[in-house]
Amino acid sequence: MVGPHGGNVKELTELYQLSEQSIIDFSANINPLGVSKKLKEEINNKFDQVLHYPDLRYKELKNLIAKHHEVKSEEIFLGNGAAEAIYALASALDSEKVLVLAPTFSEYEDAFAHKLTDIRYFKTESTDFSVNMDDLISAIKQENVDTICLCNPNNPTGKLIEKKEIKRLLAYCDEHNIRLIVDEAFMDFLPKEESLTSELAENQHLFIIRSLTKIFAIPGLRLGYLLTSNESVMIKLNQRAIPWRINCFAEIAGKVSLEDEEYLKESLSYIETERKFLEENLKKISDITLFSSTVNFIFFNCSKYSYLQKDLLEKGILIRDCSNYQGLSDYYFRIAVRSHAENEVLVKVFEEYFYGENNS
Amino acid sequence: MVGPHGGNVKELTELYQLSEQSIIDFSANINPLGVSKKLKEEINNKFDQVLHYPDLRYKELKNLIAKHHEVKSEEIFLGNGAAEAIYALASALDSEKVLVLAPTFSEYEDAFAHKLTDIRYFKTESTDFSVNMDDLISAIKQENVDTICLCNPNNPTGKLIEKKEIKRLLAYCDEHNIRLIVDEAFMDFLPKEESLTSELAENQHLFIIRSLTKIFAIPGLRLGYLLTSNESVMIKLNQRAIPWRINCFAEIAGKVSLEDEEYLKESLSYIETERKFLEENLKKISDITLFSSTVNFIFFNCSKYSYLQKDLLEKGILIRDCSNYQGLSDYYFRIAVRSHAENEVLVKVFEEYFYGENNS
Repeated sequence: MVGPHGGNVKELTELYQLSEQSIIDFSANINPLGVSKKLKEEINNKFDQVLHYPDLRYKELKNLIAKHHEVKSEEIFLGNGAAEAIYALASALDSEKVLVLAPTFSEYEDAFAHKLTDIRYFKTESTDFSVNMDDLISAIKQENVDTICLCNPNNPTGKLIEKKEIKRLLAYCDEHNIRLIVDEAFMDFLPKEESLTSELAENQHLFIIRSLTKIFAIPGLRLGYLLTSNESVMIKLNQRAIPWRINCFAEIAGKVSLEDEEYLKESLSYIETERKFLEENLKKISDITLFSSTVNFIFFNCSKYSYLQKDLLEKGILIRDCSNYQGLSDYYFRIAVRSHAENEVLVKVFEEYFYGENNS
Repeated sequence: MVGPHGGNVKELTELYQLSEQSIIDFSANINPLGVSKKLKEEINNKFDQVLHYPDLRYKELKNLIAKHHEVKSEEIFLGNGAAEAIYALASALDSEKVLVLAPTFSEYEDAFAHKLTDIRYFKTESTDFSVNMDDLISAIKQENVDTICLCNPNNPTGKLIEKKEIKRLLAYCDEHNIRLIVDEAFMDFLPKEESLTSELAENQHLFIIRSLTKIFAIPGLRLGYLLTSNESVMIKLNQRAIPWRINCFAEIAGKVSLEDEEYLKESLSYIETERKFLEENLKKISDITLFSSTVNFIFFNCSKYSYLQKDLLEKGILIRDCSNYQGLSDYYFRIAVRSHAENEVLVKVFEEYFYGENNS
């Protein structure tokens, strides 16, 4: 079975008997500037850390994260990737009825499904994937849920709920004793002010998930975390935590990356330019319906070609087929913004495919 | 609070306000030859793997482990360190009453405690930490447990249960529908024939935990696994598994290390020589009672000096204070076998401490 996520070049090339080397992977949403130069240097310099157990408390790394978000070190729970933080949180919360935005990152359904929680969906396809906050609050009332999961900006749609609107949701949750889990895995691609971290100290019902693998291009290294000021949940999380779960190189990567402000700034500017380049070219293709994005990936619909992912893979391009997302009808796809040269290849392959002889 | 494990140089030096750099860490049981040379090279060559999500199935790594132990690839569950495999197994088993050998590695108590399992102890202090198999089987009958956890060779005592005896236990467990969890984290320091992996295919009640961090000196990287032929437990484990939980460098380390037979052979011979060197010198100290060991660490009792760990830390040597192990009275300690030069320092510090002016 092919796994449920992007970035699975190996599985798909095996399935279709293609060479892995010749594929450009647009299915995983990773910073196109690649790893910051400082990281390779630092891992080389500190290679001997493999010989030692990591600091069980991860004091230095937590202090840096705390500084980065202006939160307290005790409000951070580290995960071996955001996925681990999500599973740990689902396990600690004992939620009975959860409302999940649909479509969204599938790990939320999976993490709560393990606990046999009743999962409901709030679908956004009919509103072009924008969230109408009044409708969402009505759905929360109607379904009488105790927990809400959403990604902001959302994956795979790229849609952002504006700060003012999501604060309205947070106030509602706080008043009605409902937990609000906001996954901000792609928030680093936006200005800092959009993040809900500013509301953390005052809201015991708020749980923010963050990931360092996207913005810092380290999906192989695994590093994410949960932020919450809810002490009783944090006690449970720490009691059940697996010791040394962040390995030494992921720890080094976190420390180096968080201090590399220059790399962050350069990345945001590069991605914006390249996203526009892709959007401008792809919107000319009449078979594609493009949705506006705020981040480093683009979501689109293309109902005319049933085997789009397979067809493009044979031309050396792996895109994300979104058909396994809950709350999506068929023929939705996602592509990451990559380097300019690679984006040019994608545009060329798309143009040939949609206008070329084989498909004319 | 100082953590419950060895290898916590940072915490202890902070506590006693000492310089971390000047300390030789004898508290963590790591191969004294250090990381195999091939590993640093390979991590450098394959650094760009940080840019990609790991293969969700970890096919190549599992195939190598399968070959190494002559088991099937489907019988392997990978963990981000053995600790993760232990927690996942405890979570999947739904045991009601567990017998744990005491003293032993504390993660077993912790992993089952999360499930509110009833934990009983089989204490070995009165038999010089050897396991009398008839007594153990009697205890199993009497306590009516459904699961047994033991480490072979045991940590912190270094004692090995011989193959013939542990097979007797396994046969009893198989007949009485009891799960036997055998942690072989230190089995790589002994000839392959001692391992229970040979019994895996035929015994659905057997669960073997292995770690690559000790023998390959990669505690910073985290890599362990569970072996079992029990399909229904494996299905549960895979359903609940966190995706991409082994990061790319741990994956590389596993692949490189398992194929480095020469390094393995050299390590075993070096450790045997050095263990003998330490044993010969320490047994001359009358205040110390040494227990015979089969592996890369030595366990001893020293009831005369209450602050032995702190006193020696001030002299630049960190030893493992075993007072937090279940089933041990006070004044037990453990030291790892390190390089010859470091072992000489330890012997000198011990001689000065026990015979020197300050303590005469």
